[in-house]
Amino acid sequence: MLTEIAKKTRLAAQNLASLPSDKKNKAIESIAKSLELHADQIVAANAIDCQAAEGKIGSALYSRLKLNATKLIGAIVGVRDVGKLADPVGQIQIHRELDAGLIMHRVSCPVGVLGVIFEARPDAVIQIASLAIKSGNGVILKGGSEAVNSCTVLVKAIKAGLAQSEVDPDVIQILTTRSETTELLKLDRYVDLIIPRGSNEFVKYVQDNTRIPVLGHADGICHLYIDSEADLDRAIAITIDSKTQYPAACNAIETLLIHQSIANEFLPAIINKLQADQVKVKLDEIGHQLLGDKIENIELATADDWSTEYSDLILAIKIVPDIESAITHINTYGSRHTDAIVTTNSSTAKMFIDRVDAANVFHNCSTRFSDGFRYGFGAEVGISTQKMPPRGPVGLEGLVTYKYQITGDGHIVATYAGDNPKPFTHRDLS
Amino acid sequence: MLTEIAKKTRLAAQNLASLPSDKKNKAIESIAKSLELHADQIVAANAIDCQAAEGKIGSALYSRLKLNATKLIGAIVGVRDVGKLADPVGQIQIHRELDAGLIMHRVSCPVGVLGVIFEARPDAVIQIASLAIKSGNGVILKGGSEAVNSCTVLVKAIKAGLAQSEVDPDVIQILTTRSETTELLKLDRYVDLIIPRGSNEFVKYVQDNTRIPVLGHADGICHLYIDSEADLDRAIAITIDSKTQYPAACNAIETLLIHQSIANEFLPAIINKLQADQVKVKLDEIGHQLLGDKIENIELATADDWSTEYSDLILAIKIVPDIESAITHINTYGSRHTDAIVTTNSSTAKMFIDRVDAANVFHNCSTRFSDGFRYGFGAEVGISTQKMPPRGPVGLEGLVTYKYQITGDGHIVATYAGDNPKPFTHRDLS
Repeated sequence: MLTEIAKKTRLAAQNLASLPSDKKNKAIESIAKSLELHADQIVAANAIDCQAAEGKIGSALYSRLKLNATKLIGAIVGVRDVGKLADPVGQIQIHRELDAGLIMHRVSCPVGVLGVIFEARPDAVIQIASLAIKSGNGVILKGGSEAVNSCTVLVKAIKAGLAQSEVDPDVIQILTTRSETTELLKLDRYVDLIIPRGSNEFVKYVQDNTRIPVLGHADGICHLYIDSEADLDRAIAITIDSKTQYPAACNAIETLLIHQSIANEFLPAIINKLQADQVKVKLDEIGHQLLGDKIENIELATADDWSTEYSDLILAIKIVPDIESAITHINTYGSRHTDAIVTTNSSTAKMFIDRVDAANVFHNCSTRFSDGFRYGFGAEVGISTQKMPPRGPVGLEGLVTYKYQITGDGHIVATYAGDNPKPFTHRDLS
Repeated sequence: MLTEIAKKTRLAAQNLASLPSDKKNKAIESIAKSLELHADQIVAANAIDCQAAEGKIGSALYSRLKLNATKLIGAIVGVRDVGKLADPVGQIQIHRELDAGLIMHRVSCPVGVLGVIFEARPDAVIQIASLAIKSGNGVILKGGSEAVNSCTVLVKAIKAGLAQSEVDPDVIQILTTRSETTELLKLDRYVDLIIPRGSNEFVKYVQDNTRIPVLGHADGICHLYIDSEADLDRAIAITIDSKTQYPAACNAIETLLIHQSIANEFLPAIINKLQADQVKVKLDEIGHQLLGDKIENIELATADDWSTEYSDLILAIKIVPDIESAITHINTYGSRHTDAIVTTNSSTAKMFIDRVDAANVFHNCSTRFSDGFRYGFGAEVGISTQKMPPRGPVGLEGLVTYKYQITGDGHIVATYAGDNPKPFTHRDLS
């Protein structure tokens, strides 16, 4: 059954893949109009979901689940914004003459069919649908079960919009049961990329249970290292921003590393500031010794803390003897997400940036900058902590791949092989 | 034990990662010199391997195992050629001002540590070592057991060369037992990319038994489609080249699709030519009906043939009613490797190129062109049939990833958030 849905999506996506930008943009405008037209139904369906969930989920989850008229209008603005982004498909990356009349292009093309599994957050349907269509991909969605009515009505409205365009409404599908999620992960013949959004445990589960490439990250254990040559006022401002500006974000720091030569001065200053901002501090043994009994309410940080993503107003602090130790700590316990250094010494900064093994490595600024919108990518699909591209904040660019296209004039390889092979010209064309 | 080796490799690779091109090139030259210096020992070690393998392996495998002085000299030329290739590391892909004083670079960087598992082919050690060092990566090698003496002596010579350079000899390691291969696949904390070379079954085994990204391909089921508007002489030449120029290659065709409207004329012509070149033909039911008893020695192609990679002088032929059927057949049975069309109609060709879901899609030329050397990539690591980049023939470019680096001046995200957020400038710098 799900295989049939996936086949249908794949077929529809094949047509979408070669549509020119203006037709995709018209389809995106059709979606926006249809969402406006069905606004009352969408808000009503969401009210049913919210009523059923009330008291059963936390307030943060509840506010994400809620999709009132104002939030819907905002999401529709987002759809039209995606329409305005540059088309990631059809970009010529290589244009090369291999020999006279034998011309190679490497051209960006859609990935195919995306499987996106997300939380009970109905506005995600709207964002993902517009990103998928802009990038020429089909998409099979599965939202959190609390949002099932909202998501179903939203996808219906989106399909109604697509029916007015040249894009086959089959490019978007919604799944509603958990067993379908398990089945989806097995469809490696029909689904090309899985994008899981949700808890670390869920992302790990997905990574361990599919052969389909997974775009995303489980952990977000980010570090800030305050070097011996740091400007300490700046170091305090960056630490506070990196920890408190939005502590639940994956790019917020979990561990602060401090060079021992400045710890006597910096440690009490930063702890006072953190505690004033309601941050619970966990300090290593050396730090406790340095601090003596100057400040109360500081827990001892243990080895477990270095691998813990608090996602909360808690910060582990470790004193390190030198930058090498800081780098080794980060490369051992970090999740290759985002790590930063505060220093006025540019060669120390260079060493840190070169050696820290992370998608995002910063100097003298907050770790919270690692984000697709802040990078100017327009829209963000997620942040990938895998080593191979797409890595780091992923925009529309992460939803396309490329194809090598060669046009010849009857060229055969035998001409270029054997005892008297014809040489290739390998001339890049503009 | 293997974990310790992998940790050591990783540490050595971290130093290598930030070495400038000239120092890496000097290390590559040191390797070349050391291989020349140890040539006698290498050839002698190989003679032991060859003696032990004689009569136990086929002649093709034996000739790959053999590394005499001439072949070694050729391989050393290859090392120096890699030295001349452009450095894939340190390429600035994005250079953007996010706001005044907040500058982002996206810079290519090594992947980290490669795990390369290959056949009993000692020259591969030489090629892989030079590619790994050029791309700034550590590498853990495991060669086929028949080549154990050759590989061990080769790696010793390479390490001796590196000892004369600024590259830590620990960047290259050799494993010698099968149990280590299994263990290697589990080291996802220390190994960033696995490159398996060998049989389809082996590559599948690797893909199914590791969480580490795998670069490569299991199947190579490539197609050639002869359209109704094809130039038939050209179609014959391209068919023969695509099948017979090197039938064991992954980019040789396994299935020929023929538009029914030209089958009456083309089918007997191509079958005669194929049979003259010792190609065994398997023809579908419709083809048999069209052909009648004009030609003998033609087997019936069954459903299994469409999914079989013969890697031999065997070709399955299917008659299709239209281009849509050809595309559907390819997208159903193909391995997303290389597929080609012969047609004089450019819009038919465009449709084929747009819709066929493969890394390499060609028009009016042989499928055998899909190869890193022929594409002008200098050296080829392998051909990837995964959807996400690196896809298709992969050169040095596939051994690097990228990092987002931001340098600020104390910038914090709070400035750009809240009720009165400062806007980003997002200005691309040259």
